[in-house]
Amino acid sequence: MSHEAKLTELRERIGEILDLKRASALLQWDQQTMMPPNGNESRSDQLSTIERFSHELFVSDEIGALLGELEGAELDPESIDGALVRVTRRDWEKARKVPPELQAELTRAEVIGVMAWAEARRNSDFQAFLPHLEKNVELKRRYIECFKDSGKSDYDILLDDYQEGARSEEITAIFDRVKEVVIPLIREVHAAEQVDSSFAHGHFPVEKQELIGREILERLGYSSEAWRLDPTVHPFATSISVDDIRLTTRYSEADAESIFHTAHEFGHGIYEFGIDRALERTPLVELNSMVLHESQSRLWENLVCRSRPFWKFFFPRLQEVFPDQLAGVTDEMYWRHVNRVQPDFIRVEADEVTYGMHIILRYELEQEIIAGQLELRDLPGVWNERMKDYFGLDVPDDARGVLQDVHWSGGSFGYFPTYLLGTIASVQIWEKVRSELPDLDSQMEAGEFGALRDWLGERLYKWVRRFTPDEMLERVVGGPLDVEPYLAYLGSKVEAIYGVRV
Amino acid sequence: MSHEAKLTELRERIGEILDLKRASALLQWDQQTMMPPNGNESRSDQLSTIERFSHELFVSDEIGALLGELEGAELDPESIDGALVRVTRRDWEKARKVPPELQAELTRAEVIGVMAWAEARRNSDFQAFLPHLEKNVELKRRYIECFKDSGKSDYDILLDDYQEGARSEEITAIFDRVKEVVIPLIREVHAAEQVDSSFAHGHFPVEKQELIGREILERLGYSSEAWRLDPTVHPFATSISVDDIRLTTRYSEADAESIFHTAHEFGHGIYEFGIDRALERTPLVELNSMVLHESQSRLWENLVCRSRPFWKFFFPRLQEVFPDQLAGVTDEMYWRHVNRVQPDFIRVEADEVTYGMHIILRYELEQEIIAGQLELRDLPGVWNERMKDYFGLDVPDDARGVLQDVHWSGGSFGYFPTYLLGTIASVQIWEKVRSELPDLDSQMEAGEFGALRDWLGERLYKWVRRFTPDEMLERVVGGPLDVEPYLAYLGSKVEAIYGVRV
Repeated sequence: MSHEAKLTELRERIGEILDLKRASALLQWDQQTMMPPNGNESRSDQLSTIERFSHELFVSDEIGALLGELEGAELDPESIDGALVRVTRRDWEKARKVPPELQAELTRAEVIGVMAWAEARRNSDFQAFLPHLEKNVELKRRYIECFKDSGKSDYDILLDDYQEGARSEEITAIFDRVKEVVIPLIREVHAAEQVDSSFAHGHFPVEKQELIGREILERLGYSSEAWRLDPTVHPFATSISVDDIRLTTRYSEADAESIFHTAHEFGHGIYEFGIDRALERTPLVELNSMVLHESQSRLWENLVCRSRPFWKFFFPRLQEVFPDQLAGVTDEMYWRHVNRVQPDFIRVEADEVTYGMHIILRYELEQEIIAGQLELRDLPGVWNERMKDYFGLDVPDDARGVLQDVHWSGGSFGYFPTYLLGTIASVQIWEKVRSELPDLDSQMEAGEFGALRDWLGERLYKWVRRFTPDEMLERVVGGPLDVEPYLAYLGSKVEAIYGVRV
Repeated sequence: MSHEAKLTELRERIGEILDLKRASALLQWDQQTMMPPNGNESRSDQLSTIERFSHELFVSDEIGALLGELEGAELDPESIDGALVRVTRRDWEKARKVPPELQAELTRAEVIGVMAWAEARRNSDFQAFLPHLEKNVELKRRYIECFKDSGKSDYDILLDDYQEGARSEEITAIFDRVKEVVIPLIREVHAAEQVDSSFAHGHFPVEKQELIGREILERLGYSSEAWRLDPTVHPFATSISVDDIRLTTRYSEADAESIFHTAHEFGHGIYEFGIDRALERTPLVELNSMVLHESQSRLWENLVCRSRPFWKFFFPRLQEVFPDQLAGVTDEMYWRHVNRVQPDFIRVEADEVTYGMHIILRYELEQEIIAGQLELRDLPGVWNERMKDYFGLDVPDDARGVLQDVHWSGGSFGYFPTYLLGTIASVQIWEKVRSELPDLDSQMEAGEFGALRDWLGERLYKWVRRFTPDEMLERVVGGPLDVEPYLAYLGSKVEAIYGVRV
């Protein structure tokens, strides 16, 4: 068989596996948005069967043999085929290390854990969730055992699933620097005159929020030819193909905050929509960097949608949609409102300044959990102590405390830090964009986002996994991750809103 | 391995295959209801990959060996396990006869054919569709070749995929009898005084039709715990599990006819919802009788929703929802309207009397096509001639003629007759229900459908494939298919509405 024929064979095999993964993505999207509740039990069977088949097909000796032969073919490492072989080899080596029985147990524990968590959170009952958490941690330890020969620390083995090559040593140094600046910043803001947000709480009907949400999305780059937007409990974005992007958002009638959930998920969606079509149906469309992915959700949510020019353009329209609720409010008042800093219990509702501390708290706890330094039954108490230390808040119940996030219930340890690292990267990327698009503010003020989208698409989105995360960031911003632009950005935002200089 | 262990092994293997088929059902449902249009190309890949895997997994030697061993175990043929082995053997033998390459070609031609048909129908362009039809017919001939040793005629080989054991000789005799009665009946009605339907055409907003449609569905037995209802272009029902039933319907603002599409799909849905939970995740939940399935869509659409008692209960509510449109209309007038007989071009909008002739026309043509007696390029001309003969109508264009139905574009030859056979069976079943539930009319007049649902559930729905279609009908009505109750029903309906006695 020629190299061409072997490449075709490899592409066909991994393309089929990707088809199965996309079917799985649809089953999951449907479960969160459309499925009648009684469909849940069968849905678990369907998902675990597809997961098992795609795993079995992937770890086959045949794929290993094809990779070996293609590695001998000396493909151009810069080419798509070169990247394809490299990336597939890496995934294959990782997947082969996990015994099928453990993989099945992990999948099963994830499904059961998430269901148990949802119930426990409803009842604010940590004890009911504890055995599932224990099970997840035990399985994660067995998972770590599979990668003991990698030379990585236990926690870094988990990190690698979300951010290829990430090292907790570096992350801890970055997060310590964040704490150094942000903890005093929160105190300063607390002592300053507060922002008037009284107009932002009232009755904001869902259908009107959806209307303005869609108008904003269409300006940003959404089109119904290739996208959907649906309501759900926990907002997420997923793609069923690069031309089938599904956003979800959450509406509360008490405020118009859904706009920010929607913009956040748009950031994820536009990344996947921007992928080079030549990579479709290969593992190159899959993510190797949640940091870069989150950099885009955070960029569109915060740097675009909480900016002064954004609201200069959109506030008049928002006021048209909510004339009674926003009577007498100016675009500047609204911009101040969406940038107020307010320590609170819930991560997903946190402002830009306090957000980082939510992540750091979780990062520290999950490191201690994996290191075996923290008994799981003590988790609520420790959580509440740290919330007091970092935010000065007394957690009223576990639903608003340790049970608020889904991640640990599904065994996702090592995911949380990518949110803050992504936020840090988003500011670096933003600075780069601004230096190359000097009139970006006036474009946004005119409701134009095309140049921004194109810039990000060319520099970042289209490449996805053709480079490692570190290489990719280097290509976009010209250097490694740097926390200082992020800290400076937070400082200047706080100064603009509160007149406080730290 | 004990028989128990072998049964467990068989159940697990076929359960996984069913999981894949259910994922495929969701991908298809989504394609028709939710998917952004640009997702179509990837969706074809996803569907054909899943189809291929489920076929390959099923035709494996391992399943054959398990079946052989379990057949030696002399399971009780009346038991679920006995039925499971019998049904799986039958499906396995059929599936093994079709080479994987042909199966793949059939799937591919179906996907491409349906897309080409949709475009051709939009443009009323039969020539554009012709090559796809030719391809489908050629593939069907190759498919027939695989079953030449069955002793069946070519057309009966195709029929068997939709109605296990059906024979065209018997069907032709039944349909000839229908023609004998119905063609004169249509003429008589044509000569009689027409029903006033003027009030039924106007502006009926979709959201109000959806409101009343859901109210009706909930009375019939729909609940949001286990069902969904969504709009689509071509209404259908599907199930993602026995507890996840998806109905679709079509709304036109010019009338309130969506109620009948919805009721028709409810009939399909309630059948699948009524399946014994002990059969879930086995091939026993799959259909072997489109006749019985259609008998239920037609029963709920026609015998329930076009009945006098039904409208006594629901018309006052319909009038509340559409007070201007239905001002001065009585429940009797509305009942007459929904039972008017009106020869028209479109099968899915046909009344009960003319419906059969639409089916017979298609049945005759597809028999001639498979027998090679009809050149495909002559199809539009022949279609139009028959429409003139059977209905006295001049077909204005192919979109309203030979291109109106999707079936042939997807290679479904042999499906059409099940619609009329199902309608015939529905009247037989209805007579049996009425003899055992003598107060059914007064129940329906009170909006109560629980006893009807339970009767059908116990006698028919729960068993699905535990019996052959003929055995099943025999168990429900105590005899084979009989066309006379159907013809008598049509006669008495025409007499009641038009005062015509044939």
